[in-house]
Amino acid sequence: MSPTLLRNVRPWGGDARDVLIDADAIREIGAPGTISAEGAVAVDGDGGILLPSFSDVHVHLDSTRMGLPFRPNTAGDTRWSHIMNDRENWRSAERSVADRATYTLGRMIAQGATRVRSHAQVDADSGLEKFEGVLAARDAHRDRASVEIVAFPQVGIHLEDGVPDLLDLALRSGADLIGGIDPCEIDRDPIRHLDTVFDLADRHGVGVDIHLHEGGSLGLFSLDLILERTRALGMAGRVSVSHAFSLADRSPGVDRALEQVAELDVALTTIAPKGSLTVPLDLPIERLLETGVRVGLGMDGQRDYWSPWGDGDMLERTWMLAFTQGFSRDDLIEDCLAVATWGGASVIDATLPRLAPGVRPGVAVGDPAELVVVRGDTPTAAVMDRSSERLVLHRGRIVAENDDLR
Amino acid sequence: MSPTLLRNVRPWGGDARDVLIDADAIREIGAPGTISAEGAVAVDGDGGILLPSFSDVHVHLDSTRMGLPFRPNTAGDTRWSHIMNDRENWRSAERSVADRATYTLGRMIAQGATRVRSHAQVDADSGLEKFEGVLAARDAHRDRASVEIVAFPQVGIHLEDGVPDLLDLALRSGADLIGGIDPCEIDRDPIRHLDTVFDLADRHGVGVDIHLHEGGSLGLFSLDLILERTRALGMAGRVSVSHAFSLADRSPGVDRALEQVAELDVALTTIAPKGSLTVPLDLPIERLLETGVRVGLGMDGQRDYWSPWGDGDMLERTWMLAFTQGFSRDDLIEDCLAVATWGGASVIDATLPRLAPGVRPGVAVGDPAELVVVRGDTPTAAVMDRSSERLVLHRGRIVAENDDLR
Ligand SMILES: [Zn+2]
Ligand SMILES: [Zn+2]
Repeated sequence: MSPTLLRNVRPWGGDARDVLIDADAIREIGAPGTISAEGAVAVDGDGGILLPSFSDVHVHLDSTRMGLPFRPNTAGDTRWSHIMNDRENWRSAERSVADRATYTLGRMIAQGATRVRSHAQVDADSGLEKFEGVLAARDAHRDRASVEIVAFPQVGIHLEDGVPDLLDLALRSGADLIGGIDPCEIDRDPIRHLDTVFDLADRHGVGVDIHLHEGGSLGLFSLDLILERTRALGMAGRVSVSHAFSLADRSPGVDRALEQVAELDVALTTIAPKGSLTVPLDLPIERLLETGVRVGLGMDGQRDYWSPWGDGDMLERTWMLAFTQGFSRDDLIEDCLAVATWGGASVIDATLPRLAPGVRPGVAVGDPAELVVVRGDTPTAAVMDRSSERLVLHRGRIVAENDDLR
Repeated sequence: MSPTLLRNVRPWGGDARDVLIDADAIREIGAPGTISAEGAVAVDGDGGILLPSFSDVHVHLDSTRMGLPFRPNTAGDTRWSHIMNDRENWRSAERSVADRATYTLGRMIAQGATRVRSHAQVDADSGLEKFEGVLAARDAHRDRASVEIVAFPQVGIHLEDGVPDLLDLALRSGADLIGGIDPCEIDRDPIRHLDTVFDLADRHGVGVDIHLHEGGSLGLFSLDLILERTRALGMAGRVSVSHAFSLADRSPGVDRALEQVAELDVALTTIAPKGSLTVPLDLPIERLLETGVRVGLGMDGQRDYWSPWGDGDMLERTWMLAFTQGFSRDDLIEDCLAVATWGGASVIDATLPRLAPGVRPGVAVGDPAELVVVRGDTPTAAVMDRSSERLVLHRGRIVAENDDLR
């Protein structure tokens, strides 16, 4: 493959540069016109801002209805009613899981995400059908993005027969991580739930990513059990907790929990939710960055049987993250952009350097060839504008331009 | 002026209809092809959703920097530091207040707002210069939108010399309402502040719109003083309170205050802010609709010296309102759309019928000729999609199409 010479781009909004990129990394950065285009595919960046590509580290590709006729929401008020509403309706979608996941993943890539961690629901009702749909989407876009798949027991592990075997089969069939969910509230047996999750992780040598919506002291209890197992199995750096609403609270227990999260290098993912007066949901992003905790951003479900929200655009989700954090200062808004790009990359790959407030990584010589060019006077302006004019690079090659896949 | 025949539109997402509109009102609605186009300007609505136009009832046209090069935010943490930051910087804008306000008002109209209430800052530093800029913008777009202007004492009334006289002059020069702000926290003399505001209102026979950011019991105290004066002066139906953060709280005092707000027909405006665990900011929209309280939506400042947020798009602000309210149900999201359109219209004109949950007004025979056509399978889908494909009608005439002014 020929390297790509990106001309006239501004790394993180700095001075204009030409940037030479091969399949593995950024190879050379120079003043405009100083790098020879010989043997390279030259592309005009038109003064756009060069950033590491977006990493969507919490998405459910198997549930999406993006691109299909809109259906009103028929879910009830509880998480369980949403789970059952999805179960009642997903088979009646106009297109297969594979088709829907492939379309939505394509939209995500077109808008700048080349690193993705998707959950795929594994349960007694759908067996591996949803998982296989996500596998097919990954395969369809294998030259455009890197996709990790979490075998996700959305309906619990021990409420219905055969789920541990299905999870085991998914892990033998291409799943990269084992998931889990609200160990107290869903299975109502946190020890049995987590022991199964960590046993599967241990036997298959895979990472763990657990949905933890449980709030307050209950969530901190479940988190403690997760941390305990992470430590016992020597899994530091290989466990993620998604949502982690209990860490959005202000109780003294949060400080102790965050210390251990940092010590055991547990990663966190957020979807930039809107909390309320009584239920805080938003992770303390600046505090996490100060503490060196890996944190990434994701879209969660996208226009599915759960909710009408979500459209595959991680730049817009970055805007929502800044909004939900109450940020107006440029440095803080750009920290959100760093979380949505490099932060997520470090959730997927714990060997990458950590973010910290004000650190703007991913666009120097040697950095990965996963990049996006966005329009805007500054990175903050780019977040505010959310222009669809973008260039997206995966493994050094342009895979999408201005909202269209190559 | 010839009437407009809008063909093939779906009022509030219902069945396809042709709609005949003259300068004053919707005159006829019929099945497609059943209304004669003779003497009318026929326009193809292409199956779009017909809604009452957006009403932005809380915007600051005088402070906008939309369309200018992005400037990083230099404000501090407090409201006062924002006020002073604006004062230090606004004169150095690349364009005049009139130019900036005209551009931004044009963007708002192009995106579907034809009813606007803008604040115009009147203070010792800027005199009537900002007010006159907003007047010029209103004049530039007089055939495209109806604009009310609030003479707004952003820096208080009694901290600097000459402000009451400037406000008086503004009211004699075209201002439609008298403003006020945080009677306790800014002037630190709520009685003197509010007596001046209501005295000006009484003498000029104009309405009142007061910024009330004060939270908790302090905000309820100021609100009570406002209600007291509304009652004493017989100004029911002519007073608005903007933000009203104290009503987002859950204290027992809120119930009593809301009863009086309803009784005195005081209108509320919100900008769909993001609150926090300790500071709730979001008005209880459904409760207001159930109580018959008039409530409207606004953009507030737009990419100005206060914050980088805001882009003139009320459809997007509707999406933010639904997000901040935590809505996923279609009926609730459509209630937000009703607030952003008809709700604001009723803030401006208290004689219009009230909203209530599930009520979808503004598109029947006899309703005002202020309309917008948006794309989407359903009204909820339109909010989620925020497509820029729109038709905008003011006084029965198309004034903008697909993001461009006519
Ligand atoms: Zn999830
Ligand atoms: Zn305001």
